[in-house]
Amino acid sequence: MSDTESTASVEVDADVALDFDDGLLPAVAQDAETGDVLMLAYVDPEALAHTQETGYAHYHSRSRDELWKKGGSSGHVQRVREVRVDCDGDALLYRVEQEGGACHTGFESCFHRTLDGETVGERAFDPDEVYGDDADEAATDGDP
Amino acid sequence: MSDTESTASVEVDADVALDFDDGLLPAVAQDAETGDVLMLAYVDPEALAHTQETGYAHYHSRSRDELWKKGGSSGHVQRVREVRVDCDGDALLYRVEQEGGACHTGFESCFHRTLDGETVGERAFDPDEVYGDDADEAATDGDP
Repeated sequence: MSDTESTASVEVDADVALDFDDGLLPAVAQDAETGDVLMLAYVDPEALAHTQETGYAHYHSRSRDELWKKGGSSGHVQRVREVRVDCDGDALLYRVEQEGGACHTGFESCFHRTLDGETVGERAFDPDEVYGDDADEAATDGDP
Repeated sequence: MSDTESTASVEVDADVALDFDDGLLPAVAQDAETGDVLMLAYVDPEALAHTQETGYAHYHSRSRDELWKKGGSSGHVQRVREVRVDCDGDALLYRVEQEGGACHTGFESCFHRTLDGETVGERAFDPDEVYGDDADEAATDGDP
């Protein structure tokens, strides 16, 4: 991935066909160093193109229906080392270097709880310090 | 998770509320030992309940619109050590012990290619030996 790579059209440039039939594909962000699964969000061709062009993870916010650069407000960006695609081309894996923590609640990973409610993840930052009283900022950063 | 755990109703038993508003939630399967992201599929309350009751990963096949036990035809089952839920309750993480390989193409992971088409994953088995000429069997096992 480089800034000089042409990514005007994901479908044309990619050797692997992606199935955007439903408009959005789920993208799993994984810490490239630790292997931790950090979050799951959604991408459209625009978000994927921005990810490839900039080297930083972009998603499409379903709630706001707009392009979303992860960490745009918090600074907790994700530098993307590699984008992988699954066997049937309808899911993506972003292998990233996570700045700060991925979760807007302050945890390293959004998957920091078991289904029984036990906390199993590690805290990375204090959300009050990062977002202050600006709930919109937290939502902008954390809501896929 | 144990077989004796009551899982008749996911919503009632879970301390963490799940948002099944859209009917299905994406579930990421991760190898609990290596940290590799193996696949992404979808679950409904029935599939999640079966996962909790049996300790083996179940999903809901979107193409066949039915409950799908991963490895039901190939034997490449996933023993589930832990189910995690993300911060906003709309994605799941299955931490599993994968028998054989997760991908019906024979690779350990369905995410065995980069977006540029480079193969980065390891082969785990020969799909011809596992599935033979039975394409339906492969599809049953591999198609989320």
